[in-house]
Amino acid sequence: MGGGHGRRPGRGIRSGPIEALGILAAKIEIIGIGNELIHGSVADQNTIYAAARLSALGFSVTRIVFVGDDLKSIRSALKEAGKRADIVLVSGGLGNTGDDITVEAVGKAFNRPLVLHKGLQEELRRYLDRRDIPWDPVLEKLAWLPQGSEVFHPRPKTCGFMLTEKDRTFFFLPGIPEEMKRVLDRRVIPYLLQHYTERDVIRSRTYRIFGLMETEVEEKLAEEVKAFPTLTLGYYPDFPELLVLASVKAGKTKEADRLLDRFGEKVAEVLGRHVISDNGLTLEEVLGELLLKTKQTLAVAESCTGGLIGHRLTAVPGSSAYFDRSLVVYSNRAKKELLGVPARVLSRYGAVSPQTARYMAEGVRAKSKTDWGLAVTGIAGPGGGTPEKPVGMVWIALAYKGGCFCEPYLFRGNRAQIKIMTAQTALNRVRECLLDDTHLSGR
Amino acid sequence: MGGGHGRRPGRGIRSGPIEALGILAAKIEIIGIGNELIHGSVADQNTIYAAARLSALGFSVTRIVFVGDDLKSIRSALKEAGKRADIVLVSGGLGNTGDDITVEAVGKAFNRPLVLHKGLQEELRRYLDRRDIPWDPVLEKLAWLPQGSEVFHPRPKTCGFMLTEKDRTFFFLPGIPEEMKRVLDRRVIPYLLQHYTERDVIRSRTYRIFGLMETEVEEKLAEEVKAFPTLTLGYYPDFPELLVLASVKAGKTKEADRLLDRFGEKVAEVLGRHVISDNGLTLEEVLGELLLKTKQTLAVAESCTGGLIGHRLTAVPGSSAYFDRSLVVYSNRAKKELLGVPARVLSRYGAVSPQTARYMAEGVRAKSKTDWGLAVTGIAGPGGGTPEKPVGMVWIALAYKGGCFCEPYLFRGNRAQIKIMTAQTALNRVRECLLDDTHLSGR
Repeated sequence: MGGGHGRRPGRGIRSGPIEALGILAAKIEIIGIGNELIHGSVADQNTIYAAARLSALGFSVTRIVFVGDDLKSIRSALKEAGKRADIVLVSGGLGNTGDDITVEAVGKAFNRPLVLHKGLQEELRRYLDRRDIPWDPVLEKLAWLPQGSEVFHPRPKTCGFMLTEKDRTFFFLPGIPEEMKRVLDRRVIPYLLQHYTERDVIRSRTYRIFGLMETEVEEKLAEEVKAFPTLTLGYYPDFPELLVLASVKAGKTKEADRLLDRFGEKVAEVLGRHVISDNGLTLEEVLGELLLKTKQTLAVAESCTGGLIGHRLTAVPGSSAYFDRSLVVYSNRAKKELLGVPARVLSRYGAVSPQTARYMAEGVRAKSKTDWGLAVTGIAGPGGGTPEKPVGMVWIALAYKGGCFCEPYLFRGNRAQIKIMTAQTALNRVRECLLDDTHLSGR
Repeated sequence: MGGGHGRRPGRGIRSGPIEALGILAAKIEIIGIGNELIHGSVADQNTIYAAARLSALGFSVTRIVFVGDDLKSIRSALKEAGKRADIVLVSGGLGNTGDDITVEAVGKAFNRPLVLHKGLQEELRRYLDRRDIPWDPVLEKLAWLPQGSEVFHPRPKTCGFMLTEKDRTFFFLPGIPEEMKRVLDRRVIPYLLQHYTERDVIRSRTYRIFGLMETEVEEKLAEEVKAFPTLTLGYYPDFPELLVLASVKAGKTKEADRLLDRFGEKVAEVLGRHVISDNGLTLEEVLGELLLKTKQTLAVAESCTGGLIGHRLTAVPGSSAYFDRSLVVYSNRAKKELLGVPARVLSRYGAVSPQTARYMAEGVRAKSKTDWGLAVTGIAGPGGGTPEKPVGMVWIALAYKGGCFCEPYLFRGNRAQIKIMTAQTALNRVRECLLDDTHLSGR
């Protein structure tokens, strides 16, 4: 139980070349500003991106706070964060509409008058000139910053700035996600890397797991973790998957990586096919790599998923090399016409049946001349269920050279969850078959 | 500028019958506990759900805080929230794994010993008995709660509990989203409705806008808002849409609703077709209602969206009444075979061309015998672009009785964003045509 940040450092799930630097553990707090964030209107993208990037670099993100567009709340959030953290990252409220009051709040929080930033004002004028927009005094608000601010890049609306208050570094970033990410990646992170030196190395790896619950994974790994005293495990459900974050602390980066490699072998042994990836790749990316490597192709026939399987497959750049088509056959007529499911099969067994699923898988494989033909048919709900075929009943069929198998599933949840579980399970079955296939043929 | 919570109350985007009660504005803070939340590993669903539900009821959610599975952080977050808010909602850390330390932190924060909850312990035993799982002392942790806690429902792992500390009410909810939502909706909200009485009525409505930027909407509405002194507007980008939240304060619910109705007429006048809905409905739900009402059907041929259009259409229960099929024709062969796009068209103009788009739309409409045939073809990137056909170039074609139109678009962003913008724009064009059609035919 318990454990301070030193023992439970945790890391983000993204990794990149920058991570190889092996950075220290300074405490960072992130503040998101905007009424939309505290009213549940939109899911915030900025803080999760910043938290993942900074954690992956070894910084210890210790708190995330959302406050509304309210002077008093912003002021208190800034002051409190400054008391606890070494670095404070703030996003939002830098625009020129009435509810953008971050700059004003910073001035009040730290008793700094707002001063006109000439460079920014000039950029603003040039920006408007180029677009033939007449000068608007309201826009000048964008050029006023708290005294002592350093501007990253004199670009109106998206500049971002920093200031130091009582040894604490505060970064202020725009709220628009793309702009926030750009300023974070191009300005803030290089600055942090330059100014914070290495102390203790924390390295981590994230396992993407499907088909096991948190407690099952914990139990299966219980014996293995004993051999790794500096290892901590974090469990993060990410429906429909489970992310298991393994972090180790060591004197040197190489040493930490060796520990992670050794632990990784144990994970592979114990969790087997349940591990989709240990390098951040998604299921569709892993599946794409397997298909590419073995020069095989896939076509899909979707009923209850409505296109989600095709959407996931085509999320991967270059997927046209192995993904030929997906036929979203929502009506029975479409199943007959496009896949050759016989009318008597549909009338005798129904659209949600192993017979129909097999015809769909074999039909789409034959028509598209691919190596694999995947089909799903089921009842996504909320209506349409019967005692024999309840909501969540799904058949997944996979046709291949020389055969076709078909399996029943019963998924729980709402319509969206059943669609997601069906697509995930179907894609995962193809992955498993390709792994067997690759293994057997020695490819 | 500025404004306290009284002036900028804001509301969630969901609405339901419960909202008609017209509740007061008590201050609520929400605390999410879990390393995953501060390390950017997963996007939190719980706080956004709770914030939306509570805001929709008129409570004022003033702050959301995420802390890790760390005793000191949880303790300080609890104490600080108790100083500012009337009600504190905490989610996460109630399970039985080692990193679940919320209960311990509550005990430490408020100097309350943990006591064994007999009812919970018995339920736990019964739960295990029913499943033939042997008793495990580790599980008993689930039955120990801070002194003075009231358990909502003696269900192991998902019970949730509340306690009162210095006139502040603290609610503790499980971290698993489904369980958290159930306890919130069935226990917490009814409790709050019973214990907090009406003072000032704040009512709101959310407009889902597509095709206008925040500044454009603000400018278009600038004149109109002057007639509504108690109205506040919030702008929340929700890619690819913009949510505009209009809130009014009044003495009575009816009065507030009348104001919103009057403002709504102005919005419809000024923003026109850019308003997708004012009642929380998504684009695909609005489109589905239009198709149902006019008894028309739709089929889709997708290239660069890879199935996303079908996936969105089938997110709506009952969509099989108007959605026949989507053909995800990723390969040229699929375009020829399934849609009858002539080989010479593909070779002369390419897959991304108005000629191909037209053949796709007309082909899918003819084959599926629907009223409307929608087709998209484009370059989602990051590779595959040329100077003539850059990444983001998309053709959208719509075939109907007696015609077919085809329009070019150039979308910016990464692969995922281009797919999303293409699907959104395509579905929106069908909506616009149906509105024209409905209007013209007087249906």
